[in-house]
Amino acid sequence: MNRQVVLAKTPVGIPQADSFVLVEAPIPKLADGSVLIENHFLSVEPAMRGWLADKSNYSTRIAIGDVMRSLAAGKVIASKSPKYSVGDYVTGWFGWQETAHVREEDILRKVEETDLPLSLSLGILGLNGIAAYLGLTIAGEPREGDTVVVSTAAGAVGSAVGQIANILGCRTVGITGSARKVEMCLKDFGYAAAFDYSKDDLAECLGKACPDGVNVYFDNTAGRISDAVRANLAVGARIVICGTASVANWDPPPPGPRIERDLLTKRARMQGFLAFDHRDKTESTIATLAGWIREGKLAWREDVLSDLESCPGAIAGLYRGENLGKRIISLR
Amino acid sequence: MNRQVVLAKTPVGIPQADSFVLVEAPIPKLADGSVLIENHFLSVEPAMRGWLADKSNYSTRIAIGDVMRSLAAGKVIASKSPKYSVGDYVTGWFGWQETAHVREEDILRKVEETDLPLSLSLGILGLNGIAAYLGLTIAGEPREGDTVVVSTAAGAVGSAVGQIANILGCRTVGITGSARKVEMCLKDFGYAAAFDYSKDDLAECLGKACPDGVNVYFDNTAGRISDAVRANLAVGARIVICGTASVANWDPPPPGPRIERDLLTKRARMQGFLAFDHRDKTESTIATLAGWIREGKLAWREDVLSDLESCPGAIAGLYRGENLGKRIISLR
Repeated sequence: MNRQVVLAKTPVGIPQADSFVLVEAPIPKLADGSVLIENHFLSVEPAMRGWLADKSNYSTRIAIGDVMRSLAAGKVIASKSPKYSVGDYVTGWFGWQETAHVREEDILRKVEETDLPLSLSLGILGLNGIAAYLGLTIAGEPREGDTVVVSTAAGAVGSAVGQIANILGCRTVGITGSARKVEMCLKDFGYAAAFDYSKDDLAECLGKACPDGVNVYFDNTAGRISDAVRANLAVGARIVICGTASVANWDPPPPGPRIERDLLTKRARMQGFLAFDHRDKTESTIATLAGWIREGKLAWREDVLSDLESCPGAIAGLYRGENLGKRIISLR
Repeated sequence: MNRQVVLAKTPVGIPQADSFVLVEAPIPKLADGSVLIENHFLSVEPAMRGWLADKSNYSTRIAIGDVMRSLAAGKVIASKSPKYSVGDYVTGWFGWQETAHVREEDILRKVEETDLPLSLSLGILGLNGIAAYLGLTIAGEPREGDTVVVSTAAGAVGSAVGQIANILGCRTVGITGSARKVEMCLKDFGYAAAFDYSKDDLAECLGKACPDGVNVYFDNTAGRISDAVRANLAVGARIVICGTASVANWDPPPPGPRIERDLLTKRARMQGFLAFDHRDKTESTIATLAGWIREGKLAWREDVLSDLESCPGAIAGLYRGENLGKRIISLR
């Protein structure tokens, strides 16, 4: 039997534990072209809120009774696909369950970086690292000497953005949600300055830390944190919207100050970015990031929960900011 | 003596007639490197609100007692500059006055298109046409077959944007403020559809007129008009912010729905654009636009007021939408 976490009810706002239920289901007979995967690590993402939302989004909705959609990393234990062999390590849309019966197209890639921990393929070498690298370089267009501000600066995406911007010759300023995370920003992730939005007067702190203005803002939060950054934009600034985690419910969107005048007077650009749109750049991006990891230039942190029982409450915990680093569920 | 319109008091919000006063001043002795210009046409721009605003902006403030800053077109009547000769037609920062004593650097260009009316150099062949062409092509990146929505669609910038987008193979939808202007959009400027924001349910009308979504939105208004467009964006949409005319006072910015989630889910881009940043493209742009005018592909409308006495109330009138076409003051 296969243990699974399925959707029990469509959440309103941030998905809480009671939106899910654990069930057991038989493992189906392996179909032609399909693969059986033993999940080792499951991912937990802020984006899961959007995947679960009632409102139309960039992804199809998850229906009541469906296994919760999730990226996962695991080992092929049976295969009727010519592309994957027993023993291969793979990542893909395997869901919150112990064993996944998937079609070839649900597998994103075979993990080639077997010298590095498999769990990284869900974080710094997975969606988070790819979103950080491509969002920053494509939509942020950082230039050497730029000041780059990052929200959720100690998080899975943010910590990668900050370090990559440093590698590219920028000066980085982090915004995060606790004294502990400010310390991580400064010590672990190389930010030149970091602030706690829950304590500091952000607009004022950023003004002092960015005397020539903010050239790139990598936004994982939206809302009032972004308002404070926008008050400090340099002319020609680029804002990359990668996440909107600070707003609990987007249906309807909450009110905030209108931003058109700021963008016009600063000739600034604001752009929504989804790594999924750039699949053709996945392999080259992972190669770049893995190279930096092997050279010791790129650090990461993981927040590892154990067993399927941890899944239902894991998304709400992310939004409470209780994790330090990329949240994953280990099934090993 | 030289009649001038000078700033009497700094306006709050939209500049009204009482912000200005008419004075007479002697014409100074011509200095080396300077030029004396007889103004034939003065420009009236929505952007003048920003130039006059108390708050920091993209341009230096105009001080009490200064001649109102304005683009103008006129004839050189005396010159101590090797670059300009008596009889040359020129445009530049000549101000709201009959005769301008200016330095070479205040002259933007010598008007070479002497086969076309001089007044066009303040509109379709001036800042408006240049903003329309460069804003649309650089920040809007229209592709053949795109749906392009334009606000203030019958105005000096908007009417040029709509026609240029049509020339580039796009389908255009206009938003304007009266039945008369809707008619102008459809008959004079080639829009496939046009709506009156003061009467129509814009979000619904745009949804029907743009079944595949809005690819490019050229925004001259901001505010609730833009909210209605944003509800209809296609994936990958580009929003060009060229003006913010629908909002009477931006200090502080009025509240509106937060837009980050819309931009993220649609991977849309929103960008402030000022034609002044692209001076190197002025000549090639004017050549392109003048070519289309000579071929009969590009129409324009002017709203001509007479004499300096019309100046003080002219900006407020623009914001009331009373003009049909580019508003200029004729001094001839």
